[in-house]
Formats: sequence, C-alpha cells, structure tokens
Amino acid sequence: MTTSSHTWTFSARSGRINPSFIREILKATERPGVISLAGGLPAPETFPVEAMREAAAKVLREDAIAALQYTTSEGHAPLRQWIARYLSGRGLHADAEQVLIINGSQQGLDLLGKVLLDPGSTMLVERPTYLGALQSCALYEPQMKALASDREGLSPQALAQHGGDARLLYVQPNFQNPTGRIMSERRRQEIAQIASGLNLPIVEDDPYGELWFDQPCPAPLSAHMPQGSVYLGSFSKVLAPGLRLGYLVAPKALHAKLVQAKQAADLHASNLAQRMVSEVLHGPGFSAHLAQVRSVYRQRSAAMQELLSQHLGDLCAWDRPCGGMFFWLTLHEPVDTADLLKAALHAGVAFVPGSAFSHDDVDTGTIRLSFATCSDADMQRGVALLARVLRERLRAARPAVFMPAWQGA
Amino acid sequence: MTTSSHTWTFSARSGRINPSFIREILKATERPGVISLAGGLPAPETFPVEAMREAAAKVLREDAIAALQYTTSEGHAPLRQWIARYLSGRGLHADAEQVLIINGSQQGLDLLGKVLLDPGSTMLVERPTYLGALQSCALYEPQMKALASDREGLSPQALAQHGGDARLLYVQPNFQNPTGRIMSERRRQEIAQIASGLNLPIVEDDPYGELWFDQPCPAPLSAHMPQGSVYLGSFSKVLAPGLRLGYLVAPKALHAKLVQAKQAADLHASNLAQRMVSEVLHGPGFSAHLAQVRSVYRQRSAAMQELLSQHLGDLCAWDRPCGGMFFWLTLHEPVDTADLLKAALHAGVAFVPGSAFSHDDVDTGTIRLSFATCSDADMQRGVALLARVLRERLRAARPAVFMPAWQGA
Repeated sequence: MTTSSHTWTFSARSGRINPSFIREILKATERPGVISLAGGLPAPETFPVEAMREAAAKVLREDAIAALQYTTSEGHAPLRQWIARYLSGRGLHADAEQVLIINGSQQGLDLLGKVLLDPGSTMLVERPTYLGALQSCALYEPQMKALASDREGLSPQALAQHGGDARLLYVQPNFQNPTGRIMSERRRQEIAQIASGLNLPIVEDDPYGELWFDQPCPAPLSAHMPQGSVYLGSFSKVLAPGLRLGYLVAPKALHAKLVQAKQAADLHASNLAQRMVSEVLHGPGFSAHLAQVRSVYRQRSAAMQELLSQHLGDLCAWDRPCGGMFFWLTLHEPVDTADLLKAALHAGVAFVPGSAFSHDDVDTGTIRLSFATCSDADMQRGVALLARVLRERLRAARPAVFMPAWQGA
Repeated sequence: MTTSSHTWTFSARSGRINPSFIREILKATERPGVISLAGGLPAPETFPVEAMREAAAKVLREDAIAALQYTTSEGHAPLRQWIARYLSGRGLHADAEQVLIINGSQQGLDLLGKVLLDPGSTMLVERPTYLGALQSCALYEPQMKALASDREGLSPQALAQHGGDARLLYVQPNFQNPTGRIMSERRRQEIAQIASGLNLPIVEDDPYGELWFDQPCPAPLSAHMPQGSVYLGSFSKVLAPGLRLGYLVAPKALHAKLVQAKQAADLHASNLAQRMVSEVLHGPGFSAHLAQVRSVYRQRSAAMQELLSQHLGDLCAWDRPCGGMFFWLTLHEPVDTADLLKAALHAGVAFVPGSAFSHDDVDTGTIRLSFATCSDADMQRGVALLARVLRERLRAARPAVFMPAWQGA
C-alpha cells in the first residue's frame, strides 16, 4: 500500500464553486437551539404521506420489476404526459415530448449551464436572485450580470440595455426566491418581447407558482415565448423534496441536447420515484392537496405579516407576498445584515442576509425571512429576537451622547 | 405570444456529447423482435422485490417526514456507515465521512470530470473502456488517451509512458465493461505504484465487483493508494438500477469539492431511495441475496460459454469471464463489427461492436456480448444467428471463384 500523500490538481471551474462565506452562513443557521427564519425547506406537514405510502405500495405491487429496472433518460411517459396536460392548463402549451424529468429543478440549472454556457459567456440574473442558480451555473464559468428589478419584476430597460450578447436570462417570475415578488402579466409580455427580439433564451424557474394565496399566477413567462424559453418545474414544494423530482420543458433542439446531458450526468431520474409521483398526480386527491398546501402557507404568511408590522414596521420596508415562502425586508438604515446575522445567531435567531442572493455580495441592507416551517410560537419569538438585535445594532451605531449636527460641522 | 423561431447557441462542450453514431447503434439494438445480446441491463429476476416492498413500507411508516424532506448533500448517515464498513471488509479501509451518496456511479464520473478536468487536460482510460465514462467526461473536454491492456488488465508500461501529465486514470479493475476482464492482484500493486509515483489520481469504477462466480475479487485498487484514488460503487447490479443509487469514496480534500459539486448539481440523492436501500442492506438477507445474484450470472455465463464454443469457436477468440455480465470476442479475420451489426439486426440479433468502447472508434474487430438478461432459448438462437451472419460476411468477403495467387501476380 502506498501511503504517501497526494497533491490534487482541481479544474479551474471548481474554483467557482460556492464561496465558503455563504456556506458557512447557511451552516450557522442550522445550529441547534436557534430559531430558523432562514430555511428554504417546505413545511413537512404538507407532505402527502398517506398518498405516498399508497403509491409506493401500488407501484411495488403492480410494476415492481419495471420500477426497479433502468428506464429512458427522458423519463416515465405517463408522468411526462401528466406534466404536459397540467402546464397546458396553466397556459403553457407543451407536448409530452418536450418534457424531461430531472432530479429537482436544480438539476435543470446544471444541465442548462452545461449545454448553454461557455467560460466567459454572459448569464443574466435578477438582482437579487436564487442562490442555487448562482452556485449551479457558476461552475460553467459565465460572467454573471445582475439586472435591476422593481415591484413588478425584472426591469425591461435593464434587459434591453444588457441583454444583447447574453447566453441566457435566468428568472423566477412567481414568488421569487428571495423577494417573494410576482412578475406582472404586463411585465411578462414586455420581457418576452425584448428577449425574443434579442434572440435571448429565457430560463424560467417556477418552484413556487402553485403556492398562491388568493389568486393563481398569470400564465408562465415561457408561454409568451415558447420557442426561446425553458420552463423548470418542481415537485419539491407541492409534494415533497426528498424524492428529488422536477422537470423541464424545452423546445425540440434544446431538449435533445438536454436529454444527452442528462444521460451523461446520471442516466435518468429515479424510476421508482417517478412512478410514485405519477400515481399521486393521477390520483383523485391532488387538487384538494394543493388547496391544503396553499392554506398552510397563506396562514403562516399572514402570521408573519402581523408580527413584522408589530416588531419591525419602523425599521424595515417590505411588500406583503401573495404566495410562496418568503418575506424580503429592506432596512431603513444602512446595516450590513451579514454582520447582523452573527449577533442574531448569538441571540438565537437565524435569517439569510441579502448578500447571499447576488454573485457580488453587494446587497447588504436586506434580509430574507421564511415563514414556511415555523411554528406560531417560534415565529413570534424569532421575529421579536430579530427586532431586538437590530435595535441594539442601530443604537450601538449612533453616538452615545447626543451631539447637535452643527457642533461637528 | 411571440411565435418567431429561436436560434440556439450551444456551449462548445455540448459538441462533445455522445457521438450520434453510437447512440444510433444502441437504439437499433432495442428494436422489437430482435434478440438482444447487446444490453447492459441487470437481470430483473435478481431484484429483491419483496425486500424493497418491505423497506418502502417501513420507511414510509416510521420515518416518512424525514424521508420526504430535503437531506444533506453527503447522504443518509446510516447508509454511509454501512458502505464504509462493507468496503473495509473488502480490503478498502474507508471512513463514513469519505463516502458521498450519488445517483448511480455514473454521476460520480460527472462530478469527477467537473472538479478534476479542464479543457485539454489528459484523461487516461483503458482500451477498450466503459462507454458511459467516455460520454460523461467528454463534456469536460479532456484529451482522451487510451492505454493498452492485456489479460491481467491495464499495461504498467503504457501507464508509465503516458501517465506523466494526466489529470486522472479511469479504470474498471473488476470484470471490466466491455471485456469482462479482472485485474490481477500483482497488476493492481504495479499500477498503484506507478500512479502514486506520478501523483496521478486513479478513478476506480467497480459496478461488477460483487458479481464473481467462484472466488471474490482482490482488494480494490484504491486500497493500494488510498490518498490518491476515488472508488465508485453502485447498487445497480447488486440491488436494482431503477433507484439510481451509488456512492463514491474519496480522500478528504477531494471529497469536500465533490460534495459542493453534488450540491450544485442536484442538492442530494433521493432521500427515500437512500433510506430504502439502507433498510435492505442492514437487513439479514443481503448476503444470501448476493449469493443468489451471483448464481444467476454464473449459470448464464456457463451457458453462453458453451454456445460460443459450439458456434463461434473457429471464428473468434475470447477469455472465459470469471464474473460480471460480458463476453468479449476478438474475431480471427478482419471484419468491421459496426458494419456487421447491420446485417445482424436484419437477421434478428443485436450485439455491441467494439468500436463503441473507445473514443477513437478504432477497435473494429471485436464484439461485446451480454449474457445478463437472456433466456436460454434466446441465447441459443441469438448466438446461432450471430454465427450465421458472421459466416455469411466472411464468405462474401472471399473471392467467389478460387483464383491461385500466382494468376493475379
């Protein structure tokens, strides 16, 4: 046996993986005894456990051999058909042939980065944007460019100005992570029009679209530009994330490349999981289940809205989300929230600082709070703790003794 | 809606995906009515269906919420512990911390390519080698270099000569796909010694190691060089491939990078599948199950050996495999077996031509036959058909009328 040590040479791209700063932040939010308003996990009480039990039993009783054998890279045909019908019902006309089953929508980002990005090519994202998209695509060494956005979503002006030579635009139009914001119908039309004119592919990531509180989301952005866009869907929030199952819908030429990339990556998504999910979706209970999931998040969102108004109304601004899992707070006074997190963890509450949601860490005065997995008591205590820590920080930043402004001039 | 067409710009790497020639060959082997000696699928009657049923029911009864929620990228701790103990029993001392659960060992190749290969860096493979490794790593644009091998495995001379500036050596020491060959104990020592001296990382892929017929394989190659090697294991052949579950064992520095790459790729492997497999492995029946799997392949291998001797003994040479799923035939006379396949498919039998197992398609006089999924009757008919087609081809290649050599001089 050769016990001598080995010196590893890593690829250039591996240097782009996930800055350790953010990993450390996220790890710290999981300390025991800390109330987490940081997590992006779905509420476990929404998991359709009984339906999953029945589906597993049925698949392993009626189709065990097929479910345990290899299958095609494209995915289980009845599941692909269900997805195509479902999306058509939401306004995105899709053919089952365009669907590819993947290991959660996260894998879609990896596959898309693989087939669309060269080192140095431009990838456009919203500011702020989903951390996982940055992590996943960073490995393909694009130049990330963050575009301004407002309450209606991504700015059409910013897109028109910067979209010219980009390889793709990544966007979450529905209840965006981290802002919780929804892109308006009018804005979707504008964005699609501009992207289409620029021959700029849109990657539409939609994990939260079904988690609306009072009214359904507009038709997917992709519906406005089917030939030039990819739609990413997920079962993680509407069924359960532990199965790792999502899907993408892509035009034919791109779909073929993505299937090949999927095959090279891991051959296919878990066959058993695909058949279980297909059973659950084809069963009679899915609509009622969705309504139940929505009501859980609606109720928690309302509770957090009230707590925030009560404790933080004078210190931060936010828009009340109409779906999804997050509140996005913008502090009135300049406080580096990555730094604030240290004090918050010490006090016993975790959140994600806004800098985690941009590639250049510039967004320092913002906070993402999740209401998805919090009990009422934890939420109450967590928000109160956060407010206390923030007030202390603000107090500490002010001069200890009152000094009229003219004295220092 | 913008219905105008879109022009896609693909990444340079995507041009390296899977030459369509081979895809077409493999698709053709799946035509209905064709007896397939081509497939790499495991025998479905070896799947432990009842154990899987019980495991699914137990996990979804006792741990449903945990199994359906997100988990760590590293994988389910009890499963990682089982794997570490199991490998230690096979001679590769591993710590559970070094294990990463992946979507079949195929994903290990993707992750390793990602973190170890730059465009243009050299990747060493055996000639011939596993097609999937070529496909998976090709996306990271290495220069593939195929090293000569003999009956004992990879040639130490070739490795010493070409290993100098390579980023990794990919090797299947046990019942290699496609040759079925096993690397001798002595050869493992030599290869490890040379690789270690060159600071050359070894990627040891071992999907077939448990499918031995009469005696267990030597300790993994990685055991001879633990600091500089990665071991890839799979549950696809010993349990069932449809779950898409495998693992890798890597030294600490590399493991950390691979975990980050796994997180970026798809967060983690199916949590439910991990817990099901962990249940089955921790149960009392796994050893007996393995013995049963081995006996199925041993019996089929013996049947194919007899049929080949009977029908093809005068036309090809082969070594009788002592494990795995494949025979590797080398034709006595020069026949392009990719071309021969067309006639074979027409006659109703499929095999994989040797050219599919090298990046440069040069291996034209060889054939891979799988005995894994064939019924006795199909195997009998398939081998007889192959022999007939080959004899016809050889006859057609000879002059129709005998012409003494001096007449043409």
